[in-house]
Amino acid sequence: MTRLRVHNLAVSLDGFATGERRTVEAPFGHAGGRLMQWFFPTRTFVTASGHESEAEGSGTVGVDDALAATTNLDIGAEIMGRGKFGPHVGPWPDEEWRGWWGDEPPFRTPVVVLTHHERPDLVLGETTFHFRDLAPADALDLARELAGGLDVRLGGGPTTVRSFLEAGLVDEMHLVLVPIVLGRGVRLWEGLEGVEEQFAIESVASPTGVVHQRFTRRR
Amino acid sequence: MTRLRVHNLAVSLDGFATGERRTVEAPFGHAGGRLMQWFFPTRTFVTASGHESEAEGSGTVGVDDALAATTNLDIGAEIMGRGKFGPHVGPWPDEEWRGWWGDEPPFRTPVVVLTHHERPDLVLGETTFHFRDLAPADALDLARELAGGLDVRLGGGPTTVRSFLEAGLVDEMHLVLVPIVLGRGVRLWEGLEGVEEQFAIESVASPTGVVHQRFTRRR
Repeated sequence: MTRLRVHNLAVSLDGFATGERRTVEAPFGHAGGRLMQWFFPTRTFVTASGHESEAEGSGTVGVDDALAATTNLDIGAEIMGRGKFGPHVGPWPDEEWRGWWGDEPPFRTPVVVLTHHERPDLVLGETTFHFRDLAPADALDLARELAGGLDVRLGGGPTTVRSFLEAGLVDEMHLVLVPIVLGRGVRLWEGLEGVEEQFAIESVASPTGVVHQRFTRRR
Repeated sequence: MTRLRVHNLAVSLDGFATGERRTVEAPFGHAGGRLMQWFFPTRTFVTASGHESEAEGSGTVGVDDALAATTNLDIGAEIMGRGKFGPHVGPWPDEEWRGWWGDEPPFRTPVVVLTHHERPDLVLGETTFHFRDLAPADALDLARELAGGLDVRLGGGPTTVRSFLEAGLVDEMHLVLVPIVLGRGVRLWEGLEGVEEQFAIESVASPTGVVHQRFTRRR
């Protein structure tokens, strides 16, 4: 059976995985770039975002990069919540919003976008977005079909990850504990008391200040 | 200037530093022993609690013990909230409750117990408890006076630590991140957005599964 995997999910000391007041200009709300600061200098990010010519050269290759580099390995499809696709709520005002990522989104696989407001499939470069109103288990069935025998990545945001954790569907999860107190935003762990019993958990502290945690489902 | 130090403060993934429904039988409420499981096998705990003859021998001396062993170094007094002294709230029904620790509490220094309901000093073995209704800064002044030139330990619980963090009075803090989701209890970080800016923070993952974080005040 292929696996459902979460990668690079950053969480503050107080358990928030995104900030408050998300907008087109601020995808993480008042958290700004603070939750992903560890990620930006990595070779994985620098390469994927085409910033190789910038001051940081080809990016760092330490602990942070080693963990980040597993993100795309053997992934055949992604599931994301509508909140990751865009900052809007409710019916689509029009279909002009085509995600944050421009004409060539970095996914390059089918992507299932969970939304109560379905719209036609959207093809952008090598990525196809499927907008569907599905429960977690059904979304996973669809993504598995689309993934062609490879794993499925659960891309977030926190509300979506929480619903798949609640349904017991997550096989692997990579969290990044960032030593900041956000104070407000979306709590990852709400309603998940005891969820750690489903997983073996390993932690490693990075010299950059964050702590990586790998959750692996107990069989 | 002497320092105000927090030690061994265990926090769940979702930011709770104690559970719900604390009683005489369950000092951490529904969290039970889970938050302090890392501590019990250490040499520091085994020695202090007089369990040396038990199966675990003289206790572990790994990363967890190294961190725990700093707890009592150069400490001349402790400040604790009433919640650490006992599970009761409101006026003392009588003065029979003399803490959880029996006739020889492990503090062996003056202890300032913060309470809105003052009562006479209580001498137990080498420890004297002073029950005072004081704001954090005034409590620290009193504890410094009693500490005879040594440091003051801020013993908890989380509500008390939070109020001293809010007042900017904590110089050093040792947190222990325990990979469990408690779901309910007392949140350490409530109201402390941005508090990390006061501190340099180092993290180390222990092979036992917890992560230690040392906060040191930026000067």
